[in-house]
Amino acid sequence: MCEACKNKAHTVEKSVSDPENKSRREFMANGAKIAAGVGLTTAFGAGLTAGASEAQAKDNAMAESTVRAWGADSKEGHFHPMDIKRRAVGPNDVKMDILFAGICHSDIHTVHSDWGPAHYPLVPGHEMVGRVVAVGSNVTRFKVGDVGGVGCMVDSCGVCENCKADREQNCLNGTTFTYDSEDKVSGGFTYGGYSKAIVVKEHFVVNIPDNMDLSRVAPIMCAGITTFSPMQHWELMKGQNLAVIGLGGLGHMAVKLGAAHGANVTVFTTTQDKMADAKKMGAKEAVLWSDEAAFKRYQASFDLMISTVPVPFKIQPFLNLLKLDATLVNVGDLFDMDGINGMALAFGRHSLAGSMIGGMKETQAVVDYCASHNIAPDVEIIKPSEIERAYQSVVNKEARYRFVIDMQNA
Amino acid sequence: MCEACKNKAHTVEKSVSDPENKSRREFMANGAKIAAGVGLTTAFGAGLTAGASEAQAKDNAMAESTVRAWGADSKEGHFHPMDIKRRAVGPNDVKMDILFAGICHSDIHTVHSDWGPAHYPLVPGHEMVGRVVAVGSNVTRFKVGDVGGVGCMVDSCGVCENCKADREQNCLNGTTFTYDSEDKVSGGFTYGGYSKAIVVKEHFVVNIPDNMDLSRVAPIMCAGITTFSPMQHWELMKGQNLAVIGLGGLGHMAVKLGAAHGANVTVFTTTQDKMADAKKMGAKEAVLWSDEAAFKRYQASFDLMISTVPVPFKIQPFLNLLKLDATLVNVGDLFDMDGINGMALAFGRHSLAGSMIGGMKETQAVVDYCASHNIAPDVEIIKPSEIERAYQSVVNKEARYRFVIDMQNA
Repeated sequence: MCEACKNKAHTVEKSVSDPENKSRREFMANGAKIAAGVGLTTAFGAGLTAGASEAQAKDNAMAESTVRAWGADSKEGHFHPMDIKRRAVGPNDVKMDILFAGICHSDIHTVHSDWGPAHYPLVPGHEMVGRVVAVGSNVTRFKVGDVGGVGCMVDSCGVCENCKADREQNCLNGTTFTYDSEDKVSGGFTYGGYSKAIVVKEHFVVNIPDNMDLSRVAPIMCAGITTFSPMQHWELMKGQNLAVIGLGGLGHMAVKLGAAHGANVTVFTTTQDKMADAKKMGAKEAVLWSDEAAFKRYQASFDLMISTVPVPFKIQPFLNLLKLDATLVNVGDLFDMDGINGMALAFGRHSLAGSMIGGMKETQAVVDYCASHNIAPDVEIIKPSEIERAYQSVVNKEARYRFVIDMQNA
Repeated sequence: MCEACKNKAHTVEKSVSDPENKSRREFMANGAKIAAGVGLTTAFGAGLTAGASEAQAKDNAMAESTVRAWGADSKEGHFHPMDIKRRAVGPNDVKMDILFAGICHSDIHTVHSDWGPAHYPLVPGHEMVGRVVAVGSNVTRFKVGDVGGVGCMVDSCGVCENCKADREQNCLNGTTFTYDSEDKVSGGFTYGGYSKAIVVKEHFVVNIPDNMDLSRVAPIMCAGITTFSPMQHWELMKGQNLAVIGLGGLGHMAVKLGAAHGANVTVFTTTQDKMADAKKMGAKEAVLWSDEAAFKRYQASFDLMISTVPVPFKIQPFLNLLKLDATLVNVGDLFDMDGINGMALAFGRHSLAGSMIGGMKETQAVVDYCASHNIAPDVEIIKPSEIERAYQSVVNKEARYRFVIDMQNA
């Protein structure tokens, strides 16, 4: 039984990593739906007396609120519960009780200030699914009780060339990312999904189709869109050869999405025991990085490669596996990259590209794609108190394959 | 008067670097035509008595020959005259007396073993124009007296997927490059254009239109095709913004070709006095690498960037100048590349690509394009004895903009 919501259905087991375990998924989905109702109650319940009117409840839901979050005060990353403010719901805003929040390796990099000094206290989380508890007067796509998804961004100018081209992540006036980003509405820095509720502009909330297992939706909002977007942009076709480098949170979504595109997927992993998993996920082949013979065999083989490895590594041996004119898209290593050789790149007219999440239209598309193709991440559901343990597992390559925090199970 | 050919018209001044000097160009063209006739005589004349029959002369032209070349015996690069063998003319071969040979920075890198140990004696040169002196029985595109151009490759398998796709430079069975490449016909390693004659398969010789100034054709065979090919592949359009990084042999051809495509060309150079030259060549703007304000101004500005700088440099500040989804094509730095940042690349979905020359069909296309658009490199004509001096000038960034060796003026 969940202590926070007092609902028995909301009791959560730790592991739902078997994608074939449908009854478990159905259980989770039902649990989530019930939990969502509870979440609604919880949100309304803050300081609410039993006899308060519906109007009063609505007013409260719309008001600025104090919500429970889990954050770190320094780059040592010791997570603890804390209270954060969420703004009052504006005319274009949606307020959601967050049901589930994924843990992305980017959260870990940010907490550790690997990409530059973070702003503490830091509440990470940019993969979330939640139940709508309040909507602003201009909101059209959501009503209270609906389920929404929020990913890596929560605001952009909306009027620049890039925003108009559905590339809000490249807003020329500065995208507001979901956490540790300057908050242009409320001031300070944004707080992410490791929290019980969030207020977001409707434009940055995607609709979640009814048939989805809510405990397995959140990772689509970053791991899914980040790997789906290159497949769309570089036009991955049925029968083409796709390489996925690294089988973690992003990589395993890339395998599932690539297989759904009809591509012949080959996974490159450093971890022996992930090879069998890769095939279960739809890969035709799995190769260890240490297998030099395979690297020779795969020279000039791939129409598209997506590298999801979140740290620097020698990428040239992988670039050499591209077919003529083909592209390796790096979505993982966001540091100075190691050992790209101009001669080797030139010989095959190869390209090394970067790509970062996707626009809101494309994020809705990947959610719909996953719903219609029955694609979901392999997740391990944890409580907020287990965030540090999960971080260590991710760094140790032990995650199978995405930790998802049950935010209502604190 | 030229000592080698005894022809007064063949006397060559050192500098023809003014692209507007048409009378000088006409002079050079006429001189080249006369020289070509002389070259024919020279080739036939090796050991030929005055009374020999035409048939005998033809047999001699078809036979294996010893020709004068200029090469280096070590990576110290002390050039000296030497004799090399050219094979007998086979059924598919064209033999040319080389009139002019360009000096490419690649020649310098190869002589210095910068890209790995070269094979000495080394005779570089992969930009040449010459007069046909003999043709094999299957040759259809050339007859004796025609002018041909030879670039960076002289052989490929002709039957692999890449060769069939007009990508001989990417032959899956190994392209034979013009010098220091395994010679699959004669054994040993190939000798390049710093020589008086060459025997090449017809497929690797392009036709040179009649109206071209022969002293200014050779650099098109490498500097031209190398910068033209990315414009075709990445579909540079009229009105788009093209950046050319580095204004040397390749860079100055990129400017002329880019301007001819109708692009707005911006040149980035380290050399103050090249800025005015860039504009004469057709650039709209020229920017010094040290101009930090300009780098800020040009953020997200370019539809295509071509980097011709032949040594490693910090390329990320240039990548940051790409528009969303755009590509920087590196054709110069064929070493391990410096400081590419995964985060920055991802933010704009930028690509870093390599490109290497072009196939034979595309090489013919760039020659024809230059002929029809009146595009020619700015050249400084030198004697073979001046190769070392020219090398030093290139390294010192003093070339304006391509040294071309008058091979018949030894």
